[in-house]
Amino acid sequence: MSYVLNDAERFADEATTGFVAAHRDVVRHVPGGVARATATPPGEVAVVVGGGSGHYPAFAGLVGPGLAHAAALGNVFASPSAQQVHGVARSVATEAGVLLSYGNYAGDVLNFGLAEKRLRDEGVPVRTVRVTDDVSSAGPDERHSRRGIAGDLVVFRTAAWAAERGLPLDDVTDLAFRANDRTRSLGVAFSGCTLPGAAEPLFTVPDGQMGVGIGIHGEPGIDTRPLPTARELAVLFVETLLGERPDDVPAAEGARVGVILNGLGSVKGEELFVVYGAVAELLEAEGLTIVDPEVGEYATSFEMAGISLTLFWLDDDLEQAWTSPAYAAAYRKGAVRPSGPRLDDDARDPVETEDVAPSADGSAEAGRIVSAAIAAVRDVIDRDADELGRLDAIAGDGDHGIGMQRGARAAAEAAEDAVEAGAGAGTVLVRAGDAWAHRAGGTSGALWGAGLRAAGERLGDGAAPAPADVAEAVHAARATIQGFGGAEIGDKTLVDALVPFAEALAAAVEDDDALAEAWTAAADAATEAARATADLAPRLGRARSHVKRSAGTPDPGAISFARAMTAAGDALARNHEEGT
Amino acid sequence: MSYVLNDAERFADEATTGFVAAHRDVVRHVPGGVARATATPPGEVAVVVGGGSGHYPAFAGLVGPGLAHAAALGNVFASPSAQQVHGVARSVATEAGVLLSYGNYAGDVLNFGLAEKRLRDEGVPVRTVRVTDDVSSAGPDERHSRRGIAGDLVVFRTAAWAAERGLPLDDVTDLAFRANDRTRSLGVAFSGCTLPGAAEPLFTVPDGQMGVGIGIHGEPGIDTRPLPTARELAVLFVETLLGERPDDVPAAEGARVGVILNGLGSVKGEELFVVYGAVAELLEAEGLTIVDPEVGEYATSFEMAGISLTLFWLDDDLEQAWTSPAYAAAYRKGAVRPSGPRLDDDARDPVETEDVAPSADGSAEAGRIVSAAIAAVRDVIDRDADELGRLDAIAGDGDHGIGMQRGARAAAEAAEDAVEAGAGAGTVLVRAGDAWAHRAGGTSGALWGAGLRAAGERLGDGAAPAPADVAEAVHAARATIQGFGGAEIGDKTLVDALVPFAEALAAAVEDDDALAEAWTAAADAATEAARATADLAPRLGRARSHVKRSAGTPDPGAISFARAMTAAGDALARNHEEGT
Repeated sequence: MSYVLNDAERFADEATTGFVAAHRDVVRHVPGGVARATATPPGEVAVVVGGGSGHYPAFAGLVGPGLAHAAALGNVFASPSAQQVHGVARSVATEAGVLLSYGNYAGDVLNFGLAEKRLRDEGVPVRTVRVTDDVSSAGPDERHSRRGIAGDLVVFRTAAWAAERGLPLDDVTDLAFRANDRTRSLGVAFSGCTLPGAAEPLFTVPDGQMGVGIGIHGEPGIDTRPLPTARELAVLFVETLLGERPDDVPAAEGARVGVILNGLGSVKGEELFVVYGAVAELLEAEGLTIVDPEVGEYATSFEMAGISLTLFWLDDDLEQAWTSPAYAAAYRKGAVRPSGPRLDDDARDPVETEDVAPSADGSAEAGRIVSAAIAAVRDVIDRDADELGRLDAIAGDGDHGIGMQRGARAAAEAAEDAVEAGAGAGTVLVRAGDAWAHRAGGTSGALWGAGLRAAGERLGDGAAPAPADVAEAVHAARATIQGFGGAEIGDKTLVDALVPFAEALAAAVEDDDALAEAWTAAADAATEAARATADLAPRLGRARSHVKRSAGTPDPGAISFARAMTAAGDALARNHEEGT
Repeated sequence: MSYVLNDAERFADEATTGFVAAHRDVVRHVPGGVARATATPPGEVAVVVGGGSGHYPAFAGLVGPGLAHAAALGNVFASPSAQQVHGVARSVATEAGVLLSYGNYAGDVLNFGLAEKRLRDEGVPVRTVRVTDDVSSAGPDERHSRRGIAGDLVVFRTAAWAAERGLPLDDVTDLAFRANDRTRSLGVAFSGCTLPGAAEPLFTVPDGQMGVGIGIHGEPGIDTRPLPTARELAVLFVETLLGERPDDVPAAEGARVGVILNGLGSVKGEELFVVYGAVAELLEAEGLTIVDPEVGEYATSFEMAGISLTLFWLDDDLEQAWTSPAYAAAYRKGAVRPSGPRLDDDARDPVETEDVAPSADGSAEAGRIVSAAIAAVRDVIDRDADELGRLDAIAGDGDHGIGMQRGARAAAEAAEDAVEAGAGAGTVLVRAGDAWAHRAGGTSGALWGAGLRAAGERLGDGAAPAPADVAEAVHAARATIQGFGGAEIGDKTLVDALVPFAEALAAAVEDDDALAEAWTAAADAATEAARATADLAPRLGRARSHVKRSAGTPDPGAISFARAMTAAGDALARNHEEGT
């Protein structure tokens, strides 16, 4: 939907005014739309495009060197009038003539057609190339009645490249036709869109479903299916479009294709990249060479959530056009491009793991116990992750459960690997800590990771550490966590449970309690302290409104710490029983 | 929400893989994130940025010449781990050192801080500049505890410009600090966002409300208010930020500012431009000079609907930095920029209106009657616009009511103006038709416009046209509409009502009926024919699924035509009674 506007009737006009104000270096306002900021050079064919508003960056954002000379801009989802098209074309036409190019929709055909007639009557040479890339809108034998979607970009780019090379109108037209003939698209939608000022969406897609072949004005699709995974969607796209491969292009080895993965509105960049990763893999597996892929928004349908894939089978001319420089408001290529040789990709994990040197028997046994305790922590966090998330959602961003889960799982796995390699207790803790910090990320991940590492470094890999050694390792972890995080007792953080835990453990060990007993007493102290954080206000520096929202709720970091320590204590007790 | 993904846990990693695949000319994968595709030149300070995923184009899309040397990419809304930051920094560091820059969030501070320590231990010179532009997150006396939002772009651009000029690390740091000191932002949100794989949104904004000062991870805002108009939002932004003007910058005349109007996810381009138009006007009214405004997505919050405004008070150095070229995946500037003088804006309406030459008395009277009939058409369309929209929504895009309304209103206004200027019937019809076509756009607008024009040209401006003249004018309109639109009887279009109307009118006139009577008989025939279109299938060429959806429903174009003709007939009858 549209959220803020002044007047629904004037929405498209105001958008154009704001667009020109933001892009004065590239465009100027002309009657009926926008044109390049500079004059068409004498003798150059002018490429005039256009269509309804609501498809940004189509069409205003696609005006500039390497793209259109001008765009006629209609109302939202309505073709520009013939007068608009005429006015825009006149503003850029030279004696070399005008190529009109636009998506094949009835209203556009009619209005551009009327404008073409009027321009001809005035003596301006005019040709027309309609874009018909959407394979879902008609069968292969009715290709010329198909509608145009993101393939617009391909045809406009080709026409502009030809025009800027100084080719005559007929040659520019032939190249644009050739580009359209070799372009195929398929789109899907996950949600509808609501026009500015409208109370209801233009159409809806049922939750968990996807409309296949839906148009960019909400025209119904050819099929409704359950939401696929990103990879399944990529398979649908690639199989459909390769099945429509133009007859006169190579099938596999030797075929070079331009690719557009187009977001139709509300699909975010990251999600497009996940889909593109799968698309690229599938195309390459088919033997195709991808040239200058474009992943982003090129022709949208207001805020509709949807994605389309466009394939453009290149030949030598078309590849030159596709890779040529451009400088429009929303499409730029070939600027201060990187020079120098491209370095190799290096997608290695940033945590490097050295081999573990096996340690003495007693030490390896201690490593096993530590690993069992970490596994117990993982299990309790797995069990409680949703609850921790809900607790965190009251005053924070709700990701504490997920973050702890990622960290604890990674730590338990790293600990097991280290034990398998014969590592001692200290090394197991260090590796678990590094894995936790790296996989969990965020604040709690960094603190848990640093704490485990500090404990491991203090404990070392000696055989069977004494309870006093363990208490000192916990002390080291506490000091590290407080040192990094800067929190004090009473700030409503993890520290509120950690400090009582470390103190109770040290006291019990001093009383000569066995480790498992001492640990359990410390975990009980941590649990009590964690519950008591419900009465605290959050530490300074968090958004102030948190104070109000979290009143009466305990701190999720303190709670998860206490539960983890309780679980670790249970593991130590089990080990103690098994050992006796 | 996220619609398609493979595995929520691997979402961020897969997004990075797809991103690198799509942008191999600009970036390479390095441990923990992405770096420029080419090596950092010896002696150049490396600018290393980063943060959680879910903010695209921050941070991966902001790596390249003129922007960051590398970005560490954490999980969704989670800071990268210290290991990631370290790995990324090592991949681009030279002996000149590293500037770390990132938004001021606890997790980032911690992990970048740990990485900084590790880099220093390894002998790499490191400095840090945290971005703190969000005025809503803390008061002016706590500026350094504010969080960073779209101001990231400003600070990264400045740091990179300084680094690429070969300045030493301390100077690069000073300039980045200065940029941050002179940057202020405020954001608002209209909806929440849902993390990949999550069932529920992270937070919600009540319908019709707006969260003011909300953070880019859904941190609660400082205020909730009713949705404003675009202009009211611009006033809130500009007044708040100008009230925070840094002490050491000029107040008005002479102050030059960089501007970023940032979409946070689901707000569409057109809507941003509407808001930007108002922002630009307000800033200029304050005497500020806007330099290189940016309107688009620069730091998002997944698919949250929201907008932020950033002001960057320039000085000579900072303006050079802000206007310098860049070539990142998502931010490009200074490519094949237009050369030659900028032509003037020309935002005139593309419909030019010549003065009307007053005609003879009888003719002006005929013009008044035509104008009254058109006003009656406008009134009935106004009354029925919603119903026509609903009818169209069954098989089309639901805009028939709105389009007809826009056209009829414009036509009635143009007709009145023409009458006032003394125009005859023909001129009134021609002007009404041109206005209808231009304001309504789309298919029906073009057809109605062309039909009215054709009728006007046939009728001419003579005094008191005879009924036979009127029937011939209607015949001309019918021929024109069928000629342009290409529809035949039975295609389920306007033509199904138009042809019987024209034929019945001609027959009644031939029988010597008075015009008002003849017209009413013809309108009745049109009404009957329009209702009968419910039994027809739509004409070929519309999306095939329309056939099924529109079964049993009459064609909205035929219905609106019949109602318009009935209303016009009533007006003629009223005139006839008044005349007698």
